[in-house]
Amino acid sequence: MRIARARIDGQPRIIVDTAGATRLAPSDFPDDALAAIAAVRADVAANWDTIDASDLELLAPVSGAGKIIAVGLNYVDHAEETGFAAPERPLTFAKYPSSITGPTTDVFVPDHLTQGIDFEAELALVIGRRCGGITPATLDDVAAATVANDVSARDVQFADAQWTRGKSFDTFTPLGPWLVTSDEFNLAASHRVYATVDGELMQEDHTSEMIFDLPTILAFVSDGITLEPGDIVLSGTPAGAGGFRTPPRYVQHGQTVVCGVEGLGELTNRYVYRSQRTQ
Amino acid sequence: MRIARARIDGQPRIIVDTAGATRLAPSDFPDDALAAIAAVRADVAANWDTIDASDLELLAPVSGAGKIIAVGLNYVDHAEETGFAAPERPLTFAKYPSSITGPTTDVFVPDHLTQGIDFEAELALVIGRRCGGITPATLDDVAAATVANDVSARDVQFADAQWTRGKSFDTFTPLGPWLVTSDEFNLAASHRVYATVDGELMQEDHTSEMIFDLPTILAFVSDGITLEPGDIVLSGTPAGAGGFRTPPRYVQHGQTVVCGVEGLGELTNRYVYRSQRTQ
Repeated sequence: MRIARARIDGQPRIIVDTAGATRLAPSDFPDDALAAIAAVRADVAANWDTIDASDLELLAPVSGAGKIIAVGLNYVDHAEETGFAAPERPLTFAKYPSSITGPTTDVFVPDHLTQGIDFEAELALVIGRRCGGITPATLDDVAAATVANDVSARDVQFADAQWTRGKSFDTFTPLGPWLVTSDEFNLAASHRVYATVDGELMQEDHTSEMIFDLPTILAFVSDGITLEPGDIVLSGTPAGAGGFRTPPRYVQHGQTVVCGVEGLGELTNRYVYRSQRTQ
Repeated sequence: MRIARARIDGQPRIIVDTAGATRLAPSDFPDDALAAIAAVRADVAANWDTIDASDLELLAPVSGAGKIIAVGLNYVDHAEETGFAAPERPLTFAKYPSSITGPTTDVFVPDHLTQGIDFEAELALVIGRRCGGITPATLDDVAAATVANDVSARDVQFADAQWTRGKSFDTFTPLGPWLVTSDEFNLAASHRVYATVDGELMQEDHTSEMIFDLPTILAFVSDGITLEPGDIVLSGTPAGAGGFRTPPRYVQHGQTVVCGVEGLGELTNRYVYRSQRTQ
């Protein structure tokens, strides 16, 4: 099944796409994609009204995430292009959940802070239940997969050395458009991951080229760290982001970045330079 | 006023200490310290039953934080002892909120991952309302102050280079014991910050020795990043943590670490080595 959140009459509402129909959760249904997955599994959603999803404004499919754990340098070619040594174990860092935005909203670039704004297409996992800590998390703990753009202010990221701030400005984590569950998306298979800027292909690789595969990532990031429902794990990005090219090709004001994973869909976000301090 | 969360009959309950009396929120009051602050201000809490708080098991005073933004190297002597250059602007990093634990619980050390476990006493700020992003956050956006221990696995922290994982294992952020509002704790004044290990004074300094003061920190961390109610800002730690001594003095299994800020109270946490993978 596929689950999304849409803004309808000003309110976030859950929509589900399953068995060939798109259905709208009742207005009193919780604004919670994981609850929607449970409702479909319990056959509750079968009676929801059908809806035409084609013109809806989709929101980020997850709200209220407790943490975003991202894995860096996880594709062979990307690790090489950065000049960093390929990691011997997953290299993790945090993005603040307040950076999450929708699949088609503008990415606001605080251009008083950065002159080097970039994109990173990634396969994202949404955790479905409390797991990890002592027992390693597994693919069974994943509720669904989706697409993320790990927007990165390269100058801030590398000047700070700690990567979180330069990757956590408001709107720096477009997410969506749908959460897709394992009946429609096989996490054990290889999938094409790609990004374009104004239509030009910039990143393209397959998840089979990850240095650490998804089960290894889940076991590692949950070792000593409890994962909670709605937590998000980003699995790394392929080679080709603008900041690692010679010369760098940062995203310019007004350009549109598409990040996609075949089988999951695409994020389409225009980048808008806007000083956070003057508007 | 002072607000805490206590476990009573197995349930988390809010207690408030104000006007010379400690009162217990009704069992149907939300498990939310910020709601308790609002209730006291609205005079709602004046009718709550009084309680003797001396024997209660206190919990972490904040649940459901969306993010913890920590500032590193923010005391003059601490920056010097680390060998890092004193930062020209606040150096921020993330701790995952799932690491938050209570003021007297055990800190579990995953000793299959680290052999270098440390402590950092810090003054912590709890954000009271949505702020930041475009308009800088100020002291007026702070709901209360409390004490944090930024528990750090130094070997993991420095091997990863990204500090978040080694500072975010479960129980690595003891917090509390009370949230103290500005009528009882003046954030603009200087306060003594200290830590002991089994009674031996290890850290002691005053918040006046911060490189960046609290208003500067709040403006910086909220520049382009929206802060939300319950978010936590850690303001840095003084010199004297075990890992920066020669030779290092890491916390041993069974030792008790006290972290305090004069006027706010103390955290008292025993460190228990426990492989997360075998128990």
